Amino acid sequence: MRILGVDPGTRTVGYGLLDPGPRRLGGLAFRYVECGVIEAPREADLAARLHVVATTLAEIIEEFEPGALAIEKAFTGRNAASALKLGQARGAIMLVATQYELPVFEYAPSSIKRVVFGHGRATKAQIQHRMQTLFRLRRTPLSDAADALAIALCHGQSALVEMSR
Amino acid sequence: MRILGVDPGTRTVGYGLLDPGPRRLGGLAFRYVECGVIEAPREADLAARLHVVATTLAEIIEEFEPGALAIEKAFTGRNAASALKLGQARGAIMLVATQYELPVFEYAPSSIKRVVFGHGRATKAQIQHRMQTLFRLRRTPLSDAADALAIALCHGQSALVEMSR
Repeated sequence: MRILGVDPGTRTVGYGLLDPGPRRLGGLAFRYVECGVIEAPREADLAARLHVVATTLAEIIEEFEPGALAIEKAFTGRNAASALKLGQARGAIMLVATQYELPVFEYAPSSIKRVVFGHGRATKAQIQHRMQTLFRLRRTPLSDAADALAIALCHGQSALVEMSR
Repeated sequence: MRILGVDPGTRTVGYGLLDPGPRRLGGLAFRYVECGVIEAPREADLAARLHVVATTLAEIIEEFEPGALAIEKAFTGRNAASALKLGQARGAIMLVATQYELPVFEYAPSSIKRVVFGHGRATKAQIQHRMQTLFRLRRTPLSDAADALAIALCHGQSALVEMSR
């Protein structure tokens, strides 16, 4: 089942799509499909920004037809104003997912990093580099796109673990 | 133009609809249409709760065909975890509005109270009581529904002030 990973942000939303692939010895069980970044227009008001993000996400879902959406579980350590903005983006994204009847899975940032690196800490640049090498991408993905791929991978690996139990 | 006021919350979302009415001396320029509360199922996960809120709100929009949606500007004084949850509800609600091409207007809680009471402070019970008397309702509206009516009234009065300039 194709996985759509989403990294929600207030100005940009990263997305990354992975397909299950043949699992070879020491190889990856997932194949890169696509990744990118949705940019909300800065000058627009909140409703218009959410609308652009939601419409673009809907186009991506219609084009790539994923079977599940994986999203970063919000980090609530930041201040209330940032949390509110992030929540608004997350609410709109999750609603689009349910409108396409996509099941939504949430993963904590530390779980995502643990799946990708084996430990819970990594810099933005390390995630970008790791995604590029793992999926043999010609260019370094943008940071939000790389995060989205890592989220999709985290869900894929968790699903594999579930299946093998 | 019919106004839909929405009081977003993480578990319940209040809504209230007002129509412009004939303005009589000392009378109200708005007429009560409907109010109520959408309850998100407590046991469901976040995506499912947002979906219930959004679907019910869409039904209300289709039934009553408002021309604008007024929503409380989020109060960011609370902690990050609450702000995130509130943001998620707001994001989903605002997205539904844009999907129905409804313009969205935001008002700070203090502005809403100032319009209704002439000053920026009022208890939940005072808002309920004021809405009941203003619109001659037979029953006291639920708190979230009364708040939503107050938000709709705030937008209506602000629009009147704009027009009279």
